[in-house]
Amino acid sequence: MPTSPAQPAGSRERMLEATIALLRAGGLSAAGINDIVRASDAPKGSVYHHFPGGKLQIAGEALEAYAERVRGFIGQALASRQAAPDKVRALFEAFAGRVAEGGFQRSCAVGTVSLDLDGDTAPLRTVLADALAGWQAEIAGHFDLGSAARTRAYAGLLLTAIEGAYVRSRAEASPQPFREAGAWLATLVD
Amino acid sequence: MPTSPAQPAGSRERMLEATIALLRAGGLSAAGINDIVRASDAPKGSVYHHFPGGKLQIAGEALEAYAERVRGFIGQALASRQAAPDKVRALFEAFAGRVAEGGFQRSCAVGTVSLDLDGDTAPLRTVLADALAGWQAEIAGHFDLGSAARTRAYAGLLLTAIEGAYVRSRAEASPQPFREAGAWLATLVD
Repeated sequence: MPTSPAQPAGSRERMLEATIALLRAGGLSAAGINDIVRASDAPKGSVYHHFPGGKLQIAGEALEAYAERVRGFIGQALASRQAAPDKVRALFEAFAGRVAEGGFQRSCAVGTVSLDLDGDTAPLRTVLADALAGWQAEIAGHFDLGSAARTRAYAGLLLTAIEGAYVRSRAEASPQPFREAGAWLATLVD
Repeated sequence: MPTSPAQPAGSRERMLEATIALLRAGGLSAAGINDIVRASDAPKGSVYHHFPGGKLQIAGEALEAYAERVRGFIGQALASRQAAPDKVRALFEAFAGRVAEGGFQRSCAVGTVSLDLDGDTAPLRTVLADALAGWQAEIAGHFDLGSAARTRAYAGLLLTAIEGAYVRSRAEASPQPFREAGAWLATLVD
């Protein structure tokens, strides 16, 4: 969407960034239009200018941008090692570092929003399912467990463990759930 | 806390039940005092009568009651089988049934609240961490992987997978993430 002369360049991007950060902190309830305006230092009208669909539109686009970014993060972590068990440990170690950096105050935006879904926000379900499917495919591309179905199932297990470790890390204020999961799940491909 | 004559018997329990259901559906933001009043059909004043600490008190007590109930649910599922791999599959199958029953609209209240934590609700972190620790101990009590540390770590992995499968099941509207995780994690104790 073109930016009108009245809007500062990059304000659309700033709003999306602010939305991603708010979603990671507290899900949809933390990412109201007023919260986004405050966090991105943008005039309120500019949110509706850039996102005429309002909260669902901006949340959906933020989740898509976030999904792409996390896919890159996953790919980079997995590509950093050769042997399959090392890849698994590196993946979980990368996420452990990510939660610790955020002081255990930020989780996966797909996780936070998934657990917030209700009748009003159900249209976001497809975006969330697509994000998860994309991550699963990214993980699967780095392993070969003999058959595509088995490799895909294993990738699904890793993804499940990542989402669960985000929950536990947040409550326990510790990266340990990621490391624990990585160590165990590496043994499945050793 | 004693119920005053002005309060209908059981209204405290109804409010706690309503809070648990709201937390499972959408976390803290879905469990405001007004939501609780509406869902429990209780007079607004009675919430503050029973829970003078307001939202944090009622959420904390609801989470404690929920944690105890889930601990029983976990124990029952694990006790239903003899062999360790069968126990693991039965546990995940029990949760798969639980999410399907709820039409994939209810998650783990500890998961939803963990991903909502912020400065205002940080006092709930201890309740959440205690709930997770209690579940981990319950799971660990049903396995023996050679050492207490190893058994405890494996129980932690199962717990991580349960929380993650709740996230994925909700977004994917499918019990499959529970079954997938159960099948894989059973192989670790086979």
